[in-house]
Amino acid sequence: MSMLDLIYKKRNGSALTSQEIREFISDYLLGKIPDYQVSALLMAIFFNGMTTAETVALTQAMVNSGERLDFSALDRPVVDKHSTGGVGDKTTLVLLPLAAAAGVTIAKMSGRGLGHTGGTIDKLSCIPGFRTNLTKDEFMQQVRQLGVAITGQTPQLAPADGKLYALRDVTATVESIPLIASSVMSKKIAAGAQSIVLDVKVGSGAFMKDLPSARQLAQMLVEIGTALGRKTTALLTNMEQPLGLTVGNAVEVVEAIETLQGNGPNDLTGLALSLGAELLVASNKAASIVEAKGVLSELLNNGKALEMFQLLVAAQGGDPKVVEEPQRLADAAYSKKVYAATSGYLKSLDALKVGQTAVLLGAGRQVKNAEIDLAAGIRLYKKTGDYVHTGELLAEVYANDADKVAAAAQQLRAAYSYIQQKPTPVPLIIERVTSEKL
Amino acid sequence: MSMLDLIYKKRNGSALTSQEIREFISDYLLGKIPDYQVSALLMAIFFNGMTTAETVALTQAMVNSGERLDFSALDRPVVDKHSTGGVGDKTTLVLLPLAAAAGVTIAKMSGRGLGHTGGTIDKLSCIPGFRTNLTKDEFMQQVRQLGVAITGQTPQLAPADGKLYALRDVTATVESIPLIASSVMSKKIAAGAQSIVLDVKVGSGAFMKDLPSARQLAQMLVEIGTALGRKTTALLTNMEQPLGLTVGNAVEVVEAIETLQGNGPNDLTGLALSLGAELLVASNKAASIVEAKGVLSELLNNGKALEMFQLLVAAQGGDPKVVEEPQRLADAAYSKKVYAATSGYLKSLDALKVGQTAVLLGAGRQVKNAEIDLAAGIRLYKKTGDYVHTGELLAEVYANDADKVAAAAQQLRAAYSYIQQKPTPVPLIIERVTSEKL
Repeated sequence: MSMLDLIYKKRNGSALTSQEIREFISDYLLGKIPDYQVSALLMAIFFNGMTTAETVALTQAMVNSGERLDFSALDRPVVDKHSTGGVGDKTTLVLLPLAAAAGVTIAKMSGRGLGHTGGTIDKLSCIPGFRTNLTKDEFMQQVRQLGVAITGQTPQLAPADGKLYALRDVTATVESIPLIASSVMSKKIAAGAQSIVLDVKVGSGAFMKDLPSARQLAQMLVEIGTALGRKTTALLTNMEQPLGLTVGNAVEVVEAIETLQGNGPNDLTGLALSLGAELLVASNKAASIVEAKGVLSELLNNGKALEMFQLLVAAQGGDPKVVEEPQRLADAAYSKKVYAATSGYLKSLDALKVGQTAVLLGAGRQVKNAEIDLAAGIRLYKKTGDYVHTGELLAEVYANDADKVAAAAQQLRAAYSYIQQKPTPVPLIIERVTSEKL
Repeated sequence: MSMLDLIYKKRNGSALTSQEIREFISDYLLGKIPDYQVSALLMAIFFNGMTTAETVALTQAMVNSGERLDFSALDRPVVDKHSTGGVGDKTTLVLLPLAAAAGVTIAKMSGRGLGHTGGTIDKLSCIPGFRTNLTKDEFMQQVRQLGVAITGQTPQLAPADGKLYALRDVTATVESIPLIASSVMSKKIAAGAQSIVLDVKVGSGAFMKDLPSARQLAQMLVEIGTALGRKTTALLTNMEQPLGLTVGNAVEVVEAIETLQGNGPNDLTGLALSLGAELLVASNKAASIVEAKGVLSELLNNGKALEMFQLLVAAQGGDPKVVEEPQRLADAAYSKKVYAATSGYLKSLDALKVGQTAVLLGAGRQVKNAEIDLAAGIRLYKKTGDYVHTGELLAEVYANDADKVAAAAQQLRAAYSYIQQKPTPVPLIIERVTSEKL
């Protein structure tokens, strides 16, 4: 294989063969191909795309590039859930204990937040003692025993994806649907999941800003999973405004706990039930989505989901008392309220701007490995479609830095727009994509 | 300047500012930007192109990246000629002494052959003693004294172009019109020419295979030259079949000498007259192209052009007796004749295939710095439009390797195609592009 020929081929719009892709990934990981050739190929892929067959081959090659977790010794299917990332997205914190309480076995690897989107690992690190760096053995044992475990991504799984992603990050080649899809699926498949449920966010606060591209990504994710023998379903969900009423880390954990107590906001509760129902059906724990939602609602109401959350926290070394005493999570020294500038319906609450405000507060990071303020965040009191009067409380911002709360409160105002007629509500779950539909 | 932002900007179809381009070139030459970011930018340029303003800025930045020759102390304009490369293109060998004999001052830097196209420096190296590695001072002094000098490209001129070109060569980003145009023009302008005449080849044996892309390149070359204050003209010329009747090195020098004696093939003689006429008019040595061609024809007929060739050879340490004794150039040990397989008119004589046959014979190189056989080459007896009878002599191949001669003779047959009706002749000079036309 000549790497130069491969670049020419892709540049000229042809599809690479599976063997070419396998050799490219293998040689790249062995250091036989210089980064400058790989980045040229990635940019050619950005422009000319990849077929499903190419994307499946790339995913498979990345899976094969490292370790794989094998749960086949278990007598039940292991499932996984992945979100493409949004603002205020604490769904995993609710969904994992909820589905586990219904008997679903979940092995979940998560990432840290980057840019305006948060990451589950950052949120969990608010819980005193909670370990997000389980060894492979610890992780697999906890999945076997408790039925649920969550840990940070390990570089041993799909290392070719890690190397490619690092290069994409510095060469403006991240935003390519086949590259995104193969990156996501290679990690999920290497982590051993037999069924995968995907939450593909669409809108201002999401990676995919418009429905056609989000749909294209969802379809490609499902096609890859299906081609590689995983039952895969994707929900396209709205990310025009933040999910729930909190954005940050400690504030989102508190909201997740409230949701597990049955007191969560409608959108977050609804999304957790919908994604959870997919997991139950995929695990043969319910015959239909409707039945599964009933089971899960009951577990929120009877305290079983919350109990599983406490078991999960305890199993990973965390302090389960955070449930009763949320002040054990980080608490911010400064706060500032934001009031409505005018009367009217909230036409929009721009998730991207809210996410950027959270970064400004210190709740997120612009560059990898930057320090964050776990107590920093935003509480929203009004969301799209609500009617507000001039001077009414819209939101409150928190941080351990007085200057930042002042600047953030100012910046957050720009996230709101008003309208006099009540806007038509947009459904949270826009579409469902499964292999049967393809 | 953030290089990542520049890649995004170009990837998303926006134009870079002159300052961004200046900083990019300067930082790259200083080693501040990694090759993998530059290759991603180059691939984005391949897909999204560059505006004239961007291409001019890139050219200027590359000119400013190194030394510049300054002929302003001379009392007359210095001109330069550049060909985009073809098969059998020995025009420079004829044109330089011819135009110099008419009083034109020419400072010419040339390259070596690569791929199926030949290079003037290789051809000149057939002349015993001829130096193609003049120092800057030797080069400038000879231009002053004799009015003409030719030497190899020096890495001191436009070094940023050298660095970029090396990267383009291994990342499939050579074939981009703004990148080609800025590369050519940066070297011409750094070499001090006040007027530039360009021979943009189009057809099978050229870099540009079709007229629209060749025209686009010619226009961009002229726009850059004009924007940077150089009188610039481009001729679009046919490269569907080789130029003249020889392809190789020593054989082409012999043909150039014959042409300087007034006995050259029509196409080569005509092209030398046309390009020479442009040089004369640009140097104010003739009032019109027609007048200039008359002057130049006379110089071919009265021996003055040949005399200047001998002065040029002698000035650069070469043996001027090659004119009378062409056997002093390399002579091949083996040869093989190729005969017509059928009767009919020659519909085409594929320049690319002829060029590839020359490489097979050892007359050219596929990789830089490869050794070549100066005696290897091809003599053509029939060209497109000629009528041939079955068994008639079409061509003869030469090399110092018996196996190569046999293989090349076999391969060369595929370059010919036949037709029963006489094909319509295609003009050699297709179009003229000058700044006035733009």
